[in-house]
Parts: sequence; C-alpha cells; structure tokens
Amino acid sequence: MPDKTTQPSMDQFIETLAPLHIYPLWKQEGLLIRRPTTEAVPYLWPYGPVRERLMEAGRLISAEEAERRVLILKNPGLNGKPAATARLYAGLQLVLPHEIAPAHYHSASAIRFVVEGSGAFTAVDGERLIMQPGDLVLTPAWSVHDHGNETDTPMIWLDGLDLPLVNGLECSFFQPLDTKAQKLTRSDDESERQYAYGQLRPSWVNWTKNYSPLAKYPWNATERILLDALKDGVAGSPTDGILFEYSNPITGGSVLPTMACYAQLLPPKFHSDAHRHTTSAVYHVVRGSGTTIMDGQRIEWNERDTFALPGWAVHEHINNASEPAMLFSFTDDPALKALGFYQEQSENKQG
Amino acid sequence: MPDKTTQPSMDQFIETLAPLHIYPLWKQEGLLIRRPTTEAVPYLWPYGPVRERLMEAGRLISAEEAERRVLILKNPGLNGKPAATARLYAGLQLVLPHEIAPAHYHSASAIRFVVEGSGAFTAVDGERLIMQPGDLVLTPAWSVHDHGNETDTPMIWLDGLDLPLVNGLECSFFQPLDTKAQKLTRSDDESERQYAYGQLRPSWVNWTKNYSPLAKYPWNATERILLDALKDGVAGSPTDGILFEYSNPITGGSVLPTMACYAQLLPPKFHSDAHRHTTSAVYHVVRGSGTTIMDGQRIEWNERDTFALPGWAVHEHINNASEPAMLFSFTDDPALKALGFYQEQSENKQG
Amino acid sequence: MPDKTTQPSMDQFIETLAPLHIYPLWKQEGLLIRRPTTEAVPYLWPYGPVRERLMEAGRLISAEEAERRVLILKNPGLNGKPAATARLYAGLQLVLPHEIAPAHYHSASAIRFVVEGSGAFTAVDGERLIMQPGDLVLTPAWSVHDHGNETDTPMIWLDGLDLPLVNGLECSFFQPLDTKAQKLTRSDDESERQYAYGQLRPSWVNWTKNYSPLAKYPWNATERILLDALKDGVAGSPTDGILFEYSNPITGGSVLPTMACYAQLLPPKFHSDAHRHTTSAVYHVVRGSGTTIMDGQRIEWNERDTFALPGWAVHEHINNASEPAMLFSFTDDPALKALGFYQEQSENKQG
Amino acid sequence: MPDKTTQPSMDQFIETLAPLHIYPLWKQEGLLIRRPTTEAVPYLWPYGPVRERLMEAGRLISAEEAERRVLILKNPGLNGKPAATARLYAGLQLVLPHEIAPAHYHSASAIRFVVEGSGAFTAVDGERLIMQPGDLVLTPAWSVHDHGNETDTPMIWLDGLDLPLVNGLECSFFQPLDTKAQKLTRSDDESERQYAYGQLRPSWVNWTKNYSPLAKYPWNATERILLDALKDGVAGSPTDGILFEYSNPITGGSVLPTMACYAQLLPPKFHSDAHRHTTSAVYHVVRGSGTTIMDGQRIEWNERDTFALPGWAVHEHINNASEPAMLFSFTDDPALKALGFYQEQSENKQG
Repeated sequence: MPDKTTQPSMDQFIETLAPLHIYPLWKQEGLLIRRPTTEAVPYLWPYGPVRERLMEAGRLISAEEAERRVLILKNPGLNGKPAATARLYAGLQLVLPHEIAPAHYHSASAIRFVVEGSGAFTAVDGERLIMQPGDLVLTPAWSVHDHGNETDTPMIWLDGLDLPLVNGLECSFFQPLDTKAQKLTRSDDESERQYAYGQLRPSWVNWTKNYSPLAKYPWNATERILLDALKDGVAGSPTDGILFEYSNPITGGSVLPTMACYAQLLPPKFHSDAHRHTTSAVYHVVRGSGTTIMDGQRIEWNERDTFALPGWAVHEHINNASEPAMLFSFTDDPALKALGFYQEQSENKQG
Repeated sequence: MPDKTTQPSMDQFIETLAPLHIYPLWKQEGLLIRRPTTEAVPYLWPYGPVRERLMEAGRLISAEEAERRVLILKNPGLNGKPAATARLYAGLQLVLPHEIAPAHYHSASAIRFVVEGSGAFTAVDGERLIMQPGDLVLTPAWSVHDHGNETDTPMIWLDGLDLPLVNGLECSFFQPLDTKAQKLTRSDDESERQYAYGQLRPSWVNWTKNYSPLAKYPWNATERILLDALKDGVAGSPTDGILFEYSNPITGGSVLPTMACYAQLLPPKFHSDAHRHTTSAVYHVVRGSGTTIMDGQRIEWNERDTFALPGWAVHEHINNASEPAMLFSFTDDPALKALGFYQEQSENKQG
Repeated sequence: MPDKTTQPSMDQFIETLAPLHIYPLWKQEGLLIRRPTTEAVPYLWPYGPVRERLMEAGRLISAEEAERRVLILKNPGLNGKPAATARLYAGLQLVLPHEIAPAHYHSASAIRFVVEGSGAFTAVDGERLIMQPGDLVLTPAWSVHDHGNETDTPMIWLDGLDLPLVNGLECSFFQPLDTKAQKLTRSDDESERQYAYGQLRPSWVNWTKNYSPLAKYPWNATERILLDALKDGVAGSPTDGILFEYSNPITGGSVLPTMACYAQLLPPKFHSDAHRHTTSAVYHVVRGSGTTIMDGQRIEWNERDTFALPGWAVHEHINNASEPAMLFSFTDDPALKALGFYQEQSENKQG
Repeated sequence: MPDKTTQPSMDQFIETLAPLHIYPLWKQEGLLIRRPTTEAVPYLWPYGPVRERLMEAGRLISAEEAERRVLILKNPGLNGKPAATARLYAGLQLVLPHEIAPAHYHSASAIRFVVEGSGAFTAVDGERLIMQPGDLVLTPAWSVHDHGNETDTPMIWLDGLDLPLVNGLECSFFQPLDTKAQKLTRSDDESERQYAYGQLRPSWVNWTKNYSPLAKYPWNATERILLDALKDGVAGSPTDGILFEYSNPITGGSVLPTMACYAQLLPPKFHSDAHRHTTSAVYHVVRGSGTTIMDGQRIEWNERDTFALPGWAVHEHINNASEPAMLFSFTDDPALKALGFYQEQSENKQG
C-alpha cells in the first residue's frame, strides 16, 4: 500500500531513474496509439511544372552526375523527409541522350515506370531492358543495375523505392560496382520473351530469388488486358474498379518482397466505394483524368500527374469522363502483409 | 532357439495362418522391390492410321454418343488396361460438326490438346474456350465441363487424364450435370484475356482452387516463346532442350495437382543427354520429326504422332533435321513429387 | 451422318483396332467410376491368436532371418495382396532377445508402434531409439534403419508401411547397407530430448527433409495429453472424439509425406457421429475396448487388437465402457490430400 | 549541354522547387546508406538497482494504475525514445498481490518473461496462463489479454513488444475491452497441456492465426532441453552455443510474426565466434554470468540482468565460469526476414 507520509514525490522518483536509463510507462506518451496516424498528407505533383524543372535540371547537372538527376517528390507533411508517403520514396528522373549511369546495387528495392521517351535501357542482372512509355521495370534489392540512353531524345521515368522502409528499419546496404557497366549475360529483353507472353516457365531455370524473374512488364500487354476486361464487362472491385496486380510468375505473388505494383482502369462514369487500409500508395496517371478523394480532400488528376495516398486515409476514385482512365500505382502492401500489419475498413463515400 | 524335434513343419504352420488372414513376410514375394519396374513399354501411335479409324468411328457412332467417340491409346504392355503409361490415360477424340456433349464433372483431372480443326469449344466452369490447333485446354478435377462443335469441320484432340492414378487409388467420383449444358457465366476465352498475355493478376478474383484459373493456353503464344528462346540461343536443359512448363499463374506451379504439361523445342541437330526418372509421360509431336530412344528402343516420330514414355525408362531425344522439332507432353510429375516419389538419374547415351 | 448400308459392323471395326493398340471408349468398362469402390473390407485381427502364431514363428524362424519374422495382416477382400487396406500395409513383428537386424533403406515410409516388450532399439539415421510399449517410431523413406533387441524379453511391434502405394505407383527402391549395422552419430534418443518436450527448435539444425526430425514419439507423453484433454472436458471432434495427430515439429504437418499417425481417446459412453472419407486407416487398440461400425458391420475391439478401415467406408466409433478407450492409427491422409483426392461426407449413424 | 552564361545558379533553381514539394536528389543526404547504422548502443540494465526502483514504484503507483506500473528500458543512444533497440521495446513490470489489470488488445505483439514471483496469471483469448519464473507467455497482436496476481507475493516480468516497429510503420491499433476482464472459455493452461509436451496437434482445432496457439512455454521443460543438449555433447552453433528457438507448433516457425524468442545455453568455458546481423535483440540472463562483447564494448552480465544488442553490432558471447549460463532473448528476426532484410556476416573475434 502506498504510504503517503514517507513516499518521495513522483518527480523526485523519476529523477532517480535517468542514470539507469529507465523511464516510467505511466509518464510515457505516444506508446500505445489508438489508430494509425501519419504526418503524410494526400498530395499531387502536377506533371507540367515538375517536368519543366526537370528539364532545367538537365541543363544544370552534367552528364557525369546524371545518375542523380532526379527530383524527389516530397510529401509536404513529412518535414522534408525524402518520401512520398511514410514508407515509399518517389522521384522523377531525367536521362539525356547518350548518358550512361554507372552500375551499383543496394538493399532497397526499386521500380521504374516510364513516363516519356523511348528506347533507353535499364540493365538488370546481365540483361538490358529496352524501355517504352508505360513499361514497368524492376531493379530488385541486391540486383546489379545501371541504365543508359543511346537514343537522341530525353527519357523521363518515375522511380519508386522502399527507401523510407529500408532506412527506417536500418537495413540499408549500397555498393557501386567496380566496373562502370555490368557484364551483359543475356539478350536484350530476354526475360520478357520468356515470361511475359503466355504462362510458361522455363524448366531449366531454377529461380530461388525473392523477386520476379521478369524484369520488364511492357505497357502494350498491360493496356490490352485492361481494355479487354472493360470490353468483357468485368465488374472488378467496388473500391478499385478493374485492378490488376503485376505478379511474379514463379510464385504468383507480388513482384518485389516489399512493394506491389498495380495497373488499374476506372471505367467511364465510375465512382468507387470508399475504404481505408494501413498501406500507402503512389499513383501515376497513364491515361485520362479523374478525381480521388482522400480524407475529405479532392485531388483532381490528369495524364502523367503523380499523387500520394497516405496509409489509413479514407479514399475513393471517380472517373466522370466518357473515356476510361488508367492508373499505375506502387504500394507497400507486401511489407505490411508480411508483418501481419495489413488492416482494411469500409467507409462511407465522401463525394 | 528353434527346437527341431518338436516344431511343426513350415507348411503346417502356414496353413494355420489362413483363417486369421495373416501371412509370413518371409514367404511373401514382390514386397520390397529393388528398382521401379513397370509393365508399360515405350510405344508410338502413328497419327495416320489412328486418324483413319477415328474418322470411321465418326460414321459408326451417332451424334448422341459422340461424347464417347474416343479411341483409347492402350499401352501394349499393360494387358488391355485403358492407360498409355501406368498412371496416365490418353485418347484421341473426334467431334463432328454440330455435335454437342452433355456437361459433367469428375474427380479425375483432364487436359485437351487440339490436333485438328478450329473453332469448336470446350466450356469449363461457365466459360467457353474456343479451340485452335495446338491449344491446351484444362478440364480440372470437379470442374463442370462440356464441349461442342458449331463449325462445319471435324475437330480432333488428344485427351489426357490421370484416370489410372485416380482409379488405382480408388478416389473416383463422376456426376453428369442435371441440365445438358452448363450455364455460361463468363465471356468466351475470358480467362485467356485476363491471364495469358503479360503477368497480371486480377485483384478482385480470390482464387483458392488447386488448379490454374487460366483454362486455355493458346498455341500461338507458346510457339512464339519456343522460337524466341531458340533465337536467343538459350541452351535450355541438357536432357530436354528448350522445355517450358505450362504454369498456374496464381502459384507458379503445375497447371493441375496431378499432371504437368510441357511445350518443348529440340533445336536442329540436337541430341539430348540420357536420363531416367520415376515419372512417366505422353508426348505429342506438334512440329517436325525426330527420334526418342527409350530403354534402348528407337522410336521415330513425325508430326501428330503420340508416344509413351514409361516411368524409369532411360531416354534421350534426337532431332537430326535442320528444322526445330516441337513436342507437347503431359506427365505425372506433380503427383509423384507431392508424395516424395520423384527420383532422377543420369545415364549414358544409348544412340 | 452414319450411312448404314456401307458401314462395317462394329465388331469388324473393333478388330481393326487391336494391331494399333487403340480401343473404343464406348466399349471400355470401369473407366469413369461414379463413387469410390474398394475390394478391401472392414476387418479385425484379434491379438491373442495372432500373437500365438507369432511366438510360434519365433521358434520356426532363425535369428539370421529375424528381420523378416513378420506376420502380414492381409485384408480378406484383397485376394492375397499384402495389404491391410488398398494403400496401407500392416504387419506384426517379433524380435527375440539378442537378435540384430541388418541395416537397409527404401523408398517406402514406415512406422513402428510398440505392442509388447521394453528396451529394444530401432536405429534411424545414426540415432538409436529405445522403445517402450506405445511408442511410435518413424523409419522414413530413404532413412537408413536397423534394429536390435539387447534385452532378455521378446519385443513385438506393429509395422505400418505405404508399400501398396509405393508399389502401385511403381516407385519402389530398396537397398541393404554394405555394413550390417549403421554408424551411430548421435546419442540414444537424442531427437526425442531435442524435440519431444516443449516446443523448441534447435537453431543449429537446418532440417530440409520431408519428414519429422523427431524419430520417436513416446507413449507416456502421448497418454498424458489424451488424459489431460479428457480432464479438461475438451469436446474434440464429433466423429473422432479426442483425436491428436502426431506432427512434424519443423512444419506442423504430418510426420511422413504419405502417412499420418494419430492418438485418439474415446471418452466413456462416447458414440461418435458417422462419416466417410476417401482415406483408409489401420487402427490399433492401446487401452480399453469398444465398437467401430464400418459399412454396417460391427467390429468389437479389445486391447492390442488391430483393425482396418477401408477408404470411403461409413464408420462410427463407440465406447460403452466407463473407462476411456485409446486408439492409435495410421492413415494415408497426406498422400490423398497432396493429390487433391481427399473427400469427406457426413452420414447417418448406423448403430 | 549546360550553357553556363544563361543558367540560373543552383541555389536559385532549388528555390523554385520548394513550392512544388520536389527536391534535388543530388543535394539529398542520407538516402542511399552504405551500411546499416543505428543510434542504439550496446547497453545493460543491471537487475538490482532497477528492481529497487520498481519496488519503489509499487509504493507510488496505486492498484488502479497497476497495469502501467512498468519501467521502460530506454536505450541511451535513442534520445529518449521508448525502445531498447531501434525496433524492440522492453520494460520491467511489477504486479503486487491482489492487483488485476483490465483487458485490452492491440496490433502490437508482446511477450512476457517471468523474472520473479509465482502463481499470477496472464489471460489470453479466454485462457489463463499461470506463471512461474522463466516462463514465456505470448500476448500476440489482436489477442485479448489481461493479468492478475491472486497470490500474496509480488510478481515481476520482462515485457517485450514490437512497438517501435508497429509505431514506426504507423500501424498501431489499441482498444480496451468493454468489460474489465475477459470471459474465460478454456481451462487454465489448457494450451500448454495440449501442445507443450510431445508433438501432438489437436485435430479438432482449425488454427489459422499468424501466431502460436501455445500461449505459455514453461521454463522447466525449456531448462531440461538445454541441459539435455549439454549432456548430449551437442556442439550447437559456433556463434550462439546451444540455441533453441521457441516455435509455433502449427507451422514450425517463429512464435509471433514480428518477434522470435530463444533459449540459449553457453557451456562452461565457451567463447563464441563473432558475427553481426541486421536484426537486433534483447537478452535476459536466466542462470549464471558471462560477457558479451558488442562492437568492441565488453558487457558483463549476471543473473536477471537485461541487455540490448543493436542491429549490425559485431558480437560474441563468453562464459568463463564452470557452470553453464542460460540466456533468454527476443529479437526482430521474423520481421526482417519477412521483408528480405536479414543479412549476416562473420567477423573476427574481439576478445
């Protein structure tokens, strides 16, 4: 029983704890949080002005530094942290004609989604992927990768990485390759030819890595699938319309262990149901225009814009146009699901 | 110590066991077998004469019985058992113009590989698959299926089933559907459009069945992959050349839980290494000609022929022509692997 | 349309097929079977008379042949086939004092359940398991095993193997070891000490085999669990009472890839619901007595009796006594489940 | 080519980016980090003085607030963050006689390891676990749990949670139960009786949760396994000695999706090899004394002390005594492994 006459004051008691590096739970704030909160906010980066700055950076940054000629999309709520959502990094990169980046590898996983230009390559694990607008290219954790633009036109792509996750969990490794470019051991786009059309697994390949052996998912096939589903009258998902996940042909799972990628079609006059989930996402508009309402805030989007959906934000998608709208997105689904942290909740529509 | 004077004779002893339904292990033969043995033999069914009989069957068998207008390929070593190898059934089926088969389902898994004709359909679980030569169609265990030929030309396909396995393990169920044809709930070839091109998983489908959601694997995509790999100079497997396994896009595994399907290209002047495995296979020649040596026996094969590889037979494939040869095959790999019964062994070449 | 005037007779037609080893499906019987049928029948081998014959075999069979001093329990319906059910082999083995069996390995999986005697050993993969009544010992596929009785009393155990499955699928390999006894590399019962008490995994062991690393499941722990569950008032399963599956601590799955083992307690006055499943089982009575009705046939069982449940037989268990009854059983569950062949159905009680 | 005469200065350029919330990668620091770095430091909390403060807290904190009478072990390097390592929380809790905590649940996973006292309970998902010193109790994510001390002596335990991970990933949910105590639906320690002794799975339980169904791992069984392995002369792991992982009997994997627990014995005169891994750990000394060198810093530990191993710290364990030392530890292994973030490296010994 507490004896009020002899007990020291709480403050005196707490002072005695500091030297031992212990602290009273009953004074500790922010430990058991009731609902997910994030400082990240819903936000859209319009393509026009960002592209203008990127082209200007092309003039400012020399070819030698070209591999770092990226504009990071920083979520306004995250106090300057280089992140689009709490766990996802996004950036727009410009590669000018005849620029070559040196090869490196790191423990962060990355994706590239091509916005402009045609014919530059990313090389991954000995294979060059020739890129066209809308193509998705994977540069998975620990894979050796570099890129080059041997064409006469600039190339712009969206970079997506799990860097806030990797760095937040203190698991970052990074290593430049000794030689500038990696050794090519496969034909250009060989994995695409082996895996991308049809569902056939090369029996002589014993793939045990934790990411997809298919390094490039071409947009032409993706768009056809979206339009075929629309034509078939597929209802899709009430919250996301016709939503396909890019998948690892060896496991059927997500393309990377920490990030999932999606191609999505919102049919004309589609207004999705609202929901929220712990996972966050970065969306890029490939075709059309529309509106996404996130935590009550309307974000109007147009072709080539990029926008961020924070975790646990209530959201719904609207396409008021008479043409289908198409979105690419990458998310942290696989990371949160692997930890048992995925939660989802239906909500009332906001718009 | 046995006391020789008082002991009964062994024969007397054994007589006393019969009423109890027990039997001495030391008298039992064929219990612990040293190496796999099979009565099945290497065998080839040439297309020409079999097709002739099949067309004759078209005249003998009425449209009402058309669903059973199949010639079973019986392995000569198996004493009349309806099986091409100890665990695989194969048959050639003819469907004449305007014939319709009633719907049914069963616990045996089946595949169809189209040999002749174009445009007839197999309907599986509410979806019609329109068939072209070389297409692979799955009618998995417990799926409702029927077929019909609404074209003006006959259609011939190769049926492959795990019936010897299902029946040998006493697990056969069979049920006709109450109505003649099943209800169609999807567009024609919808699963092909959703799964076959590119590697995208429809996120609104929660597929939990133990077989591929992709009901048809079209030949045109398959042949392109085979030829692309040849063009890429892919070495493939020493024992099988350029061998692709048709795969389940949801799991990356075999298309059916008991049978695997393969598309294979033997490059010009290719002579494979020899090996043996416990699994058995039925091969069908799609393009070209060549030789397979099995347990020392040379089998020469030409387009549209079908041949059987018994389990544990030493075998090697030879393509002496200047054109690539292409083989389709189905095997019992997944069944034996699931039980831990798969064994493989390198052998010396026989030819 | 068949032209009746010119067509050959069906019999003439069929005659032309034989040389080609093809056969008309429409004449083939027993191909698509409506419901599982088995020739195996429900049957019980009473311990008393079988033991008597076994002891007599001890006098007839010399120590040199002791490894084969087994009486096979043959299901009366299976025409002399060495099998207790269509897919399971069972036998009772006697090992006399000071007998030693030579080491061998095979592709069949085996279990031993000790019926009488105490202190003999089975050695598996370098470890000797000292056996007491009720202990379950695994001798998995491809594991090297032998046994010996260094005590002064005879030892009797029940052998269970998947031999009908292995042989039926033509996947049998068998090999004696060059030396009579295998080299011992671990302490006696080491795996039991590491795995059997508590749920702790030795982190320095990288176990990748497809069977349990725990080679012996001692009866004293098993019985305690059964009695604890009874005391806890656990309802268990309506069809099986308090039924525990012996499990592989590395995967949580069955102890062997083709066979599952169970320990079961039927509470006093328990009458289970009736059901049927495609899997078959061999039961051995460890404690008490009771009745199992199988396909309408009442089998009364007492301590140490063994009885067979054929696949798809409707069955229910009854314990009319005031003491709990305990059954050990082994089944082909994992094999049929791995192939997708497991089916189960509720039925009306028969007794 | 950059035109030096007309281009704006870099600073001017960067100023134009702020309104768009974009930022140049080439100016961004701390993005692609070469090797894991952590601010957490190796640190030991000696039991004696911490216990003293805890007993004092017992006088200061009323029974009503007892559920929060915990002293958080704060890593000195983490600037006051309530965490023992970057991803693990640890605290010591005192529960006085006759205190009862209200029930709640949360998305963080927790473990308890009993340090002092005997007979108090933690109730989890309807089952009370009666606790003895050395027992490990799981209160997994989303499980309803409370505790109470119905004995006459105080109870002290070590709490371990993945709170820094859950909060860092913004996935925290927390909910008090409406009623003070949860409804008990099982007998006390029922899961222990069902799962802890032997390896038997209750077949009537269909467990699909992502954590172990065994809520308490008793110390007496754990200690016996450690001592048996020592007696067997098991070499164990060069870096960790005789290290057992507490495992989930349903999957063989870690007890919780984000945290693993270990019981470890360092034999007399044992000096482990040195290594480092990305995962971090909190150790608690159950028996004996010894030294752990972490990043060159010698930490001497004695019974009931707790110490922190930061991620990627080089470390080795030494037991110079003639008695075995026993350590309990919990780590973030499963979280990092699930994300593909586990890396390990051998290092030279430091001591």
